[in-house]
Amino acid sequence: MATSITPRTLKGFRDYLPADMAPRRAMIRTIERVFEAHGFGPLDTPALEYAEILTGKYGDEGEKLLYRFEDHGGRPVALRYDLTVPLARVVAQHGGQIAMPLRRYHIASVWRADKPQRGRFREFMQCDVDIVGSSSAVADAEILIAGLSVLKALGIEGARLHLNHRGLLRALLSWAQVAEGKPQLLALRAIDKWDKVGAEGVRAELGGVEGLGAETADRLMTAFSQAGADDDDVLDRLQALVGADEAFDRLRQVQSLVAAAGLGDMLRIDATIARGLDYYTGVIYETRLTDPSVAGIGAVMSGGRYDELVGMFGKQQVPATGISVGLDRLLAALRELALVETGADGALIHVTVFGPEQAGASLRAATALRAAGLPVEVGTDGGKLGKQLARADKRGCRFAVVIGPDEAAAGRATCKDLRGTRQETVDVDALATLIRDFLRAP
Amino acid sequence: MATSITPRTLKGFRDYLPADMAPRRAMIRTIERVFEAHGFGPLDTPALEYAEILTGKYGDEGEKLLYRFEDHGGRPVALRYDLTVPLARVVAQHGGQIAMPLRRYHIASVWRADKPQRGRFREFMQCDVDIVGSSSAVADAEILIAGLSVLKALGIEGARLHLNHRGLLRALLSWAQVAEGKPQLLALRAIDKWDKVGAEGVRAELGGVEGLGAETADRLMTAFSQAGADDDDVLDRLQALVGADEAFDRLRQVQSLVAAAGLGDMLRIDATIARGLDYYTGVIYETRLTDPSVAGIGAVMSGGRYDELVGMFGKQQVPATGISVGLDRLLAALRELALVETGADGALIHVTVFGPEQAGASLRAATALRAAGLPVEVGTDGGKLGKQLARADKRGCRFAVVIGPDEAAAGRATCKDLRGTRQETVDVDALATLIRDFLRAP
Repeated sequence: MATSITPRTLKGFRDYLPADMAPRRAMIRTIERVFEAHGFGPLDTPALEYAEILTGKYGDEGEKLLYRFEDHGGRPVALRYDLTVPLARVVAQHGGQIAMPLRRYHIASVWRADKPQRGRFREFMQCDVDIVGSSSAVADAEILIAGLSVLKALGIEGARLHLNHRGLLRALLSWAQVAEGKPQLLALRAIDKWDKVGAEGVRAELGGVEGLGAETADRLMTAFSQAGADDDDVLDRLQALVGADEAFDRLRQVQSLVAAAGLGDMLRIDATIARGLDYYTGVIYETRLTDPSVAGIGAVMSGGRYDELVGMFGKQQVPATGISVGLDRLLAALRELALVETGADGALIHVTVFGPEQAGASLRAATALRAAGLPVEVGTDGGKLGKQLARADKRGCRFAVVIGPDEAAAGRATCKDLRGTRQETVDVDALATLIRDFLRAP
Repeated sequence: MATSITPRTLKGFRDYLPADMAPRRAMIRTIERVFEAHGFGPLDTPALEYAEILTGKYGDEGEKLLYRFEDHGGRPVALRYDLTVPLARVVAQHGGQIAMPLRRYHIASVWRADKPQRGRFREFMQCDVDIVGSSSAVADAEILIAGLSVLKALGIEGARLHLNHRGLLRALLSWAQVAEGKPQLLALRAIDKWDKVGAEGVRAELGGVEGLGAETADRLMTAFSQAGADDDDVLDRLQALVGADEAFDRLRQVQSLVAAAGLGDMLRIDATIARGLDYYTGVIYETRLTDPSVAGIGAVMSGGRYDELVGMFGKQQVPATGISVGLDRLLAALRELALVETGADGALIHVTVFGPEQAGASLRAATALRAAGLPVEVGTDGGKLGKQLARADKRGCRFAVVIGPDEAAAGRATCKDLRGTRQETVDVDALATLIRDFLRAP
């Protein structure tokens, strides 16, 4: 075997050691539980697809980031770039086997040969939940409810989902008489920054947009300065300005359904949200955290309705709506808000082994604790008790269990709290209760 | 966007639709819970590695199956082929950051460009649990205990882990005077089939091994016909035959520790188990299901000690021991034993929407049920009640909740058992209790 190879990872790729991975796993498990409670089932698709499935879907810039190669049979293949195009393929390929609408979640790695930088990796996990096959407001609301319930389940108190509609944007741009094409695109790009640069910043940027007169820019400012206000009458005011549009009805319906689920406080109509216009066809949204210490983290959960994307492999269009949870950003926020602890190298409880004669007694104690649902590791390497305790402490274990010859003979065990001075000797059967008591009263 | 692309997956790759994926997810979650209770933490590594990390590790045949290509920077890269070589790299690369021994589990996809056939795929999931950094019998036992506990947690009653030791095989071959090299390899390959072809079949195959005289073959038969017997004295008889060897001590220790954890019945010493001789250095084992209806599925969980593998990237050897759970085989067995149900397209409970006026009431009922931990989908597409109920039934939902105008006004809801004739109208607050009662008394 080769011995001179330097152990290293590719740039933009990461190892997750157990201490880092444990809180990630816990977070993903919570998200899965919430999605399942909301009637979404797990979907998985291959990491590798025929290249032609993925090409022509992500624009010129995205296309360049695809990991493409030829497999052993000379077939052009590529690693998946996101979870949405595979979803579209699945619906076109297996639609007949699925009772529509399809309610699926998909949490999996995607690959993009992007320039690595802080917080941006070439392999990262996406977390999507979508309803495919329904164009109703209830479907839009079910997605928002599932997403907001994830944040609540993770313990995040202050979060706001900024809700908009592509039709409302279209109506506002049209009312302001912005020419279609590039001027609309650039105008929206400027307005999308409202949150960051404020009204003055947006007005300045609009001034620089080619083909956009000062009068049009002023009309845009009139429309959108009403749009982001944090009150309940935004929709009424905008409708008074630009006239009736089905976007207003849809936004009101979604708002009322999300409120019925008790999550109305987390929702805010915000017409300055623009997001990927080439892609979305109905409601669009992004979610920001309101706690000042994590507000800089950016959007943690975004999405919208995309009625023309899933049909790209089939002959007919299939309406779809969904949200994408930014796992890495959410985890960063949870850490900042002290809502997750970094894991330890060791388990909650380290059962020491006094000597070969007592190993069986240690294993019996470990088995009782594990049966009670507590995470336990048995010391594998013996040695003097002081050394074993120091090792357990270094591994970040919270408790050590010691069973010497007398205790082994009597079916008893001593539990030491490694973060304090407490210790107690009890029957092995009572060990789990003792440790739960210690955990309750630290 | 392209419209003429046929939606299809690469040969040897699979989509998992929710109905298939749900029982897989549930099984993986059970396995993770058991591993964590046994003090193992999750590890994750990149799908892509520098090719040189993976090459030269899997033999000529394995090497050919690597998916290799050059990335955008012209670096030779490859998709991971297993989880053991990445583990070795992680230990060599980050060993200083980990409090040893490292107790990790890793459940992730691997890729091999193998010839696809029934039950063999080019992308499949491996599930490994290992202790790196300890050479003790306790470490070997902890691995076996974790593995056997997985089977118990999945509800599998009849399983036997056949335990052997590379040193015992060496001692038996040496006692029988089999020449080293090819004769030993071929002799072991014959003996490994004992379980399938019986003593006569093995004797016949030994007769055909070049360089293995009849006398040697007879001695092998003498040794190994004692080896597979299902009793407690196998080790004593073999030791009487070939003399003392540390393999006997290790096997007795492991046996006694696994028995202390209450799993002794699932263990059987079996010297005919040979497995990957080039790789393992100590205990080796494979696990078979004893129920006749699933015995043909083959080994569902295998592994052993490999003290010379993990050090291949470092200057020093690091002892390691581990087990690999065959997820696909186990799932096939669970299905055969009726221990898993195939999932449905829909959720447990389908809440219908009578009309736009009642949608809020339906959402409120769904929220109450979800808060009680029950999986709920809200009907997204309305229509006549009969059509909605038929749709829920087609989706495989077990219950439908109906809230008409009168019920909405009174804060009540009707629950229908879609598999029977039961139905009852209760306050929305009492809905979860009613459904749990229905579930308890089907």
